[in-house]
Amino acid sequence: MADQLAQWSEMQGGLTCTYFSPAHKAVAEQLRDWMRMAGLEASIDAIGNVVGRYASTAPSARTLIVGSHYDTVANAGRYDGRLGILTAIVVAESLALTRTQLPFHLEVIGFSEEEGVRFSAPYIGSSAVAGHFNAALLRRSDSKGISLGAVLHEHSVDLSMIEKLARRPQSLRGYLEVHIEQGPRLLERDLPVGIVTSIAGVVRFRITIDGVAGHAGTVPMALRHDAAAAAAEIVLAVERRCAATEGLVGTVGQLDVPHGLINVIPGRCEFSLDIRSSDDAIRDQAIADIRTAIDEITARRGVTAAIAEIARHPAVPCAPAMQAAFAAAVARAGITPFHLPSGAGHDADQFAGVTDIGMLFVRCGNGGISHNPREAVTADDADVGARVLRDAIMNLN
Amino acid sequence: MADQLAQWSEMQGGLTCTYFSPAHKAVAEQLRDWMRMAGLEASIDAIGNVVGRYASTAPSARTLIVGSHYDTVANAGRYDGRLGILTAIVVAESLALTRTQLPFHLEVIGFSEEEGVRFSAPYIGSSAVAGHFNAALLRRSDSKGISLGAVLHEHSVDLSMIEKLARRPQSLRGYLEVHIEQGPRLLERDLPVGIVTSIAGVVRFRITIDGVAGHAGTVPMALRHDAAAAAAEIVLAVERRCAATEGLVGTVGQLDVPHGLINVIPGRCEFSLDIRSSDDAIRDQAIADIRTAIDEITARRGVTAAIAEIARHPAVPCAPAMQAAFAAAVARAGITPFHLPSGAGHDADQFAGVTDIGMLFVRCGNGGISHNPREAVTADDADVGARVLRDAIMNLN
Repeated sequence: MADQLAQWSEMQGGLTCTYFSPAHKAVAEQLRDWMRMAGLEASIDAIGNVVGRYASTAPSARTLIVGSHYDTVANAGRYDGRLGILTAIVVAESLALTRTQLPFHLEVIGFSEEEGVRFSAPYIGSSAVAGHFNAALLRRSDSKGISLGAVLHEHSVDLSMIEKLARRPQSLRGYLEVHIEQGPRLLERDLPVGIVTSIAGVVRFRITIDGVAGHAGTVPMALRHDAAAAAAEIVLAVERRCAATEGLVGTVGQLDVPHGLINVIPGRCEFSLDIRSSDDAIRDQAIADIRTAIDEITARRGVTAAIAEIARHPAVPCAPAMQAAFAAAVARAGITPFHLPSGAGHDADQFAGVTDIGMLFVRCGNGGISHNPREAVTADDADVGARVLRDAIMNLN
Repeated sequence: MADQLAQWSEMQGGLTCTYFSPAHKAVAEQLRDWMRMAGLEASIDAIGNVVGRYASTAPSARTLIVGSHYDTVANAGRYDGRLGILTAIVVAESLALTRTQLPFHLEVIGFSEEEGVRFSAPYIGSSAVAGHFNAALLRRSDSKGISLGAVLHEHSVDLSMIEKLARRPQSLRGYLEVHIEQGPRLLERDLPVGIVTSIAGVVRFRITIDGVAGHAGTVPMALRHDAAAAAAEIVLAVERRCAATEGLVGTVGQLDVPHGLINVIPGRCEFSLDIRSSDDAIRDQAIADIRTAIDEITARRGVTAAIAEIARHPAVPCAPAMQAAFAAAVARAGITPFHLPSGAGHDADQFAGVTDIGMLFVRCGNGGISHNPREAVTADDADVGARVLRDAIMNLN
C-alpha cells in the first residue's frame, strides 16, 4: 500500500508529496477509497484530512482516534506518517470483518499536513482536529507567494469550517499513533516495536553571523572577520556539546552564505539550529552552553551573531495508561516491551492536553534512516505493529 | 570622477555594474567622453573596452597600454578597477595639455570585464586585447540563461571582430596598471603607493560533501554522517593551514546546504575553495596538506568529498624593468619604494608573456577593505598615484 501511494509524487525518481499538491489530493482519495473498502464511513474534511469512522453501538460512546499523516518531506521515504494510517486502516478492516464491538467509536485519520514543508508550518491537519488551529497561518505563504488562506479559499474553505473540525475533549477516549521510529534504537536491540514514553521538546533558532566581506586574495588570514568560518566553528560547537549528553541532539540543517562569491570573504552566513531532548532541562542547559560558545567565538573573531528563537515546544509525555496498554499488547505478542522517547515530533503532540495519547514505534531499517528514500520497514515488522495496535485497541475500555 | 561613475548601478543604495548592463554601458560612454575631453582619440571597441589613444610622432613607435577595468562585483566599492582608468586618463590629459612627446603611443584602456560576475568568467575585456580570448566563453550563460555569444550578437559582434582586437606582441612597449591595493599592507606601513612584484597564483576548487540525510530528532549524534559538519571542519582546516604560512590565503566564499531543511541532517554540503600565494610551490604544498586534511575528516566522519579543480593560474611576475621604473618614480616623489606581491588577480595577468607588465598599488583605506561599499582611497593618495604614473611613463624609453 505504501508503494502504491508513493507513485503520486511532485518529483521524478523520488517521493515528494506536500500540502494540496495534485499528488497529495490523489493520495487522499486513495486513502478514502481504502477506508471505504475496509468498511469505514469515510470522507475528506475541509483541511484535507481523510477521516474514516467505525462506529460503536454503545450509548454515549466516546471516540478513539488512531492517526498519522500522509504528506511527506522532499525526496522522502515511503513510511514516515503513512505507515500509521495504513496500519490503522488494516486494523479497522480486521475489526469490521470480525464485527468486533468496541466501547468507543474508532476514527482512523490520515492527517493532511505534518511536515511543514509547503508553508513552513507543521501540523496543519492535526491541529485543526485537536482544536488549536492557528488562524495566523492563513496568511503564511509558500515559496511561490501563495498563502494558505488562498489555497483553502480556492477549495471554498474558510476559517469557520476549519474551526468546526475541532473535537470536544470530553468526546475523546484517546489518541493512538503507530509510526516508524526514524532512528536506530529498535534496530540495535533487535525489536520490531517499542513503546514511546514521551515526545522530545524542540527549540529552533535562526542565526545570522555578520562579519566583514573582503577580497579573497588580499586580506591576510589574521585580519579577516569571516562570517562563514565563525559559523563553521559554531556548527562544530553544537555538535560537540550535543554529543556529550545522552539523548540530546542538535542539528544545523540550513547553512548558507547569501550571494556568496568564490573570490569574496563571506560577510554574512545564515544557519538554522534545532535542539531536542526528552528532558526540557537538559535541552535548555545545552542551549545556554551553546549561547556561551557563540558569544566566545564571535567576540574572538570580531563578528556578530543575531540569534532568533523561532519555535519552542516542551517535551510531551505519553499517557501512562496508553503506554501500559501498548506494553501489555507487546508482551502478549511474545515481544519484550521496550520503552523509548521519540526524538521527532508527531501529530500525537497536538492531542497532548486534549486527550490521553499513546504511540507505538515500528523498527526502521537501513540503520534507522528516515526523511530519505532509503527509509525501510519490513512487512513482518509492519504486521507486528498492526497486531499490537489491534490488541491494544481491543483491550482498551 | 569615481563618485560620478558610481551613480550608474544595477542595485538600489549600492554599486553593482556587470558586463553589458545599462549601467555598464552608461559608464563606458562617460569614460569615452572623458577621454575625448582629455585630448585622446577614443572609442568603445567590439567587446566593450573603452580605448583612448595619445599618439606618438616617433616613427615605428610601439604602444604602451595603461589600463584597468570598469565593471564591478555586486555591492562593490567605487575604486576597484576604476581608479586605474581614471588615473590613466588624468595622466594622459596632463601629457596632452603639455604636448609632451613620448617615444611610444599611449593607449588608455578601460576594460569592460574583469570580475567575472555575469558569466562566471573573468578578464573578458583584457583577454581580447591581449590576444587570448577564449571562444568557448561565447557559450557560457548568465544566471538568466543568456549566453555571452547572444549578448554580443545583439550588438552585432561576432568572434572575428573580437579576434581583431588582439595586439601583436611586437607592437607593444608594455602594460602598466594602477590599482587600489585591496589589502592593508600599505596602510600598515603608512605609504601612499607600493610597487607590485608579482600577481599571486590562484587555484580554485568546487567541493561537494555527501553524507547521509536523516531526521534531526531521531539520529543520535554518534551515528550521524552530517555533510555540513564535515564541511565546517574543512573550512576551519583551510583557515588554520593558510594562517600558518606568511603570504598564503585560503577562502571558502560559497557555502551551502542545497535544499536544506531545519529538521533534516544535511546529506550534502557544497562549497568553493580559493587558495593563493605569490609562490606557486607554497600554494601547492598548502593544497596538498588541505587534501590530506579532507581525506582524514571525510574518512573519520563516514562521508565522501568530490573535489573539482576549476581554475589554476600560476603566479605572474612583474617585469624587473617596469618595477624599476615605478620604484625610481616613487623615490623621486620622496616616498620610500616598497615592493609587495598582489594577492588579487588583475587585467595585467592577461598581458604577462605578451609584453612587460608593471603595477602600482595605491593605499586602500578602512583597514584595506575591498569588494565592499566601504572601500576607500584618499584624494591625496590618488594624486600621488597619478604623479608617479606620469613620471614613470615620461622616463620610459
